[in-house]
Amino acid sequence: MTVAEANRETDLHAAMLKLGEAARAAAHVLAQADAATKNRALAAAAAAIRDDRDAIIAANARDLAAAKADGATSAFLDRLMLDAGRIEAMARGVEDVAKLKDPVGEVIADWTRPNGLRITRVRVPLGVIGVIYESRPNVTADAAALCLKSGNAVILRGGSESFHSSRAILAALHRGLVAAGLPEACAQTVPTADRAAVGEMLRMTGLIDIIVPRGGKSLIERVSAESRIPVIKHLDGICHVYIDASANIDMARKVTVNAKMRRPGICGAAETLLVDRKVAKTNLLPVLDDLIKAGCEVRGDGEVCAAEPRAKKASEADWGTEYLDAIISVKMVDGVDGAIAHIEKYGSHHTDSIIADEAAVAEKFLNTLDSAILMHNASTQFADGGEFGMGAEIGISTDKLHARGPVGVEQLTSYKYVVHGSGQTRP
Amino acid sequence: MTVAEANRETDLHAAMLKLGEAARAAAHVLAQADAATKNRALAAAAAAIRDDRDAIIAANARDLAAAKADGATSAFLDRLMLDAGRIEAMARGVEDVAKLKDPVGEVIADWTRPNGLRITRVRVPLGVIGVIYESRPNVTADAAALCLKSGNAVILRGGSESFHSSRAILAALHRGLVAAGLPEACAQTVPTADRAAVGEMLRMTGLIDIIVPRGGKSLIERVSAESRIPVIKHLDGICHVYIDASANIDMARKVTVNAKMRRPGICGAAETLLVDRKVAKTNLLPVLDDLIKAGCEVRGDGEVCAAEPRAKKASEADWGTEYLDAIISVKMVDGVDGAIAHIEKYGSHHTDSIIADEAAVAEKFLNTLDSAILMHNASTQFADGGEFGMGAEIGISTDKLHARGPVGVEQLTSYKYVVHGSGQTRP
Repeated sequence: MTVAEANRETDLHAAMLKLGEAARAAAHVLAQADAATKNRALAAAAAAIRDDRDAIIAANARDLAAAKADGATSAFLDRLMLDAGRIEAMARGVEDVAKLKDPVGEVIADWTRPNGLRITRVRVPLGVIGVIYESRPNVTADAAALCLKSGNAVILRGGSESFHSSRAILAALHRGLVAAGLPEACAQTVPTADRAAVGEMLRMTGLIDIIVPRGGKSLIERVSAESRIPVIKHLDGICHVYIDASANIDMARKVTVNAKMRRPGICGAAETLLVDRKVAKTNLLPVLDDLIKAGCEVRGDGEVCAAEPRAKKASEADWGTEYLDAIISVKMVDGVDGAIAHIEKYGSHHTDSIIADEAAVAEKFLNTLDSAILMHNASTQFADGGEFGMGAEIGISTDKLHARGPVGVEQLTSYKYVVHGSGQTRP
Repeated sequence: MTVAEANRETDLHAAMLKLGEAARAAAHVLAQADAATKNRALAAAAAAIRDDRDAIIAANARDLAAAKADGATSAFLDRLMLDAGRIEAMARGVEDVAKLKDPVGEVIADWTRPNGLRITRVRVPLGVIGVIYESRPNVTADAAALCLKSGNAVILRGGSESFHSSRAILAALHRGLVAAGLPEACAQTVPTADRAAVGEMLRMTGLIDIIVPRGGKSLIERVSAESRIPVIKHLDGICHVYIDASANIDMARKVTVNAKMRRPGICGAAETLLVDRKVAKTNLLPVLDDLIKAGCEVRGDGEVCAAEPRAKKASEADWGTEYLDAIISVKMVDGVDGAIAHIEKYGSHHTDSIIADEAAVAEKFLNTLDSAILMHNASTQFADGGEFGMGAEIGISTDKLHARGPVGVEQLTSYKYVVHGSGQTRP
């Protein structure tokens, strides 16, 4: 390391520490803010985002120009791009979060002991949330709004490609916070596009309570491996649809195509189709035909390829691959037990669905498997906080600690016990 | 490292890996076990503990002899010692856990979406729990019973001093598991008294889901610093009692003495007394007199020492010290705001209590502070899973992720979503 590099590192460390301490102090204020104050801040932030539309588009143009010069793909540029429509959608998203029920202060449980002690479990914010994301600059507004609503301060680290866009959005959010009398430090972005800022964030134990990474697998893997702070995440979404012998074939066709092809790039998209061998002759070909006609590539096991000549041969790696694309792996299995065994071996505990009319078969699938979300006769694409009625989500967790499945405002809270007595002493 | 040492390390690593894989497989079976089966195993384990009394006492005698030869203190030997009474208490503890409500399979939430999707949040076990504890061998039975009841496999690492005692208790637990048709690997102890086994446990991500350390601060600090697995813990129990100007003096005297002196060595024991300056003349001296008469050493700030000549002068370090002994630090503060400021600076987010008759003052204390447990007009010694009506507890958490406060069977679970549809696809 050169002296200049060492100095830069020391400066970054000091800047991040300052950021963390400001977030901690802001979290303290925010934890006491009532629902009306937080909603005022969100409404004012939405208005400021609309007012700042031109400034945000100009900042975004700088990011787009840099990304183009770097040779970014058109898909990447599309994710990065903000226009009037996307900025309006961002403002509306913030307003929608304001409409959610305030989780803070909710009495989750309440009971009285024989000695008269009344015990209540009361929802409180987590504190400071670190969000690490990639190219989509709208996450800046979405994540900040969810954290604010749940009474948490947030430190945002967007992709270096969206650095200017995120800062412009943050400026609007700050005006909203100030309008409601809340500290600007309720929402902060890291001071530099330098990747080293991520490393600093992941070591800020005591200042950041939880890290939420949003992005590709390599980002999530790096964050999980390096973080000294608990992480809420899902690494893979290898979602399965299993078509049982008892399935209604029309439902199976409709649900499978939707689960795969509605939006192949989301984490709740199906990646593998399992078909009960007993109904191979009746159910397999119509479903594969629907998928292929919808533009999906089919990679099948030996039996599937024998039945459907348009299918390619799947390799062992296919069963553990999240394509996030119009590709599906297809395997024949021996009933629900075969499906369960396959999913236990290759699944990622995200979302798995069974199509079956026989209730006992469905119950076996739902009870035995331990995915964050298990569906019966429904598309895996419903794996989403909005679709669950939880409002927006900051992500989906496949971990078992704290939050599992969609992570909405309620999942961004903890609880404390408040115990009311009348002078009780413990015998 | 010598070749012999390196070989030993490789052997330990392999043995621990085998243990972890066996635990994972057992957890899979246990997650599907119904309440009756788990309760049968617990009842049979309690009976086996009673049957094995002489063998457990003989194993304990080996541990005691080794500890004596090592020059252990009498307090240490007392914690380690098992006699007929303690073994009976251990068996009863296991039976008490059997009586708790089975948390697994409970539907925590249940709602239906406008599109007809019925969404349920169902409680599931965490998986494999690693418990790392010190000298009390009864933790072997207590922790194993709680994990079994909550459907989790457990890997136990007791103190090396209680190695033989723990193995003898485990043998009895295994007979209980086998009697109910459950795998012995539902409860395992590490194969060696070697401290290196702890290091191995803390790196077993994917095989152990959560680590619960029980013991002194140095153990907990080591586990927190080294663990790659989430840890449920509390580091300190610096609990406060604040006597407000509005307090009933008789209640304040009774609760304070109980909070400090009932059992000064538990984590919920009060360590610091804060007294509203406004009532120094009326309330301070009677409370201090009670404490001193009960055998408590008082370490006061300047004002306290001026008022009570038997008080010693507290140093800055006293405000952050968990004595776990018959010592209390005492400070005069300016009302509830002064108390809150002191607790925010020196507290450990464990348990804090206010004695006050004025409801608004109490509400301020309870709403503003963010301790795991906040009490009003009650002794801090109630900070206990049993006293909360949660049955036994595996520990108390001051963290904000997952579980906070007493960690009972319910807190040793996660949840999954089970979604029932009728062919819904996402638009």
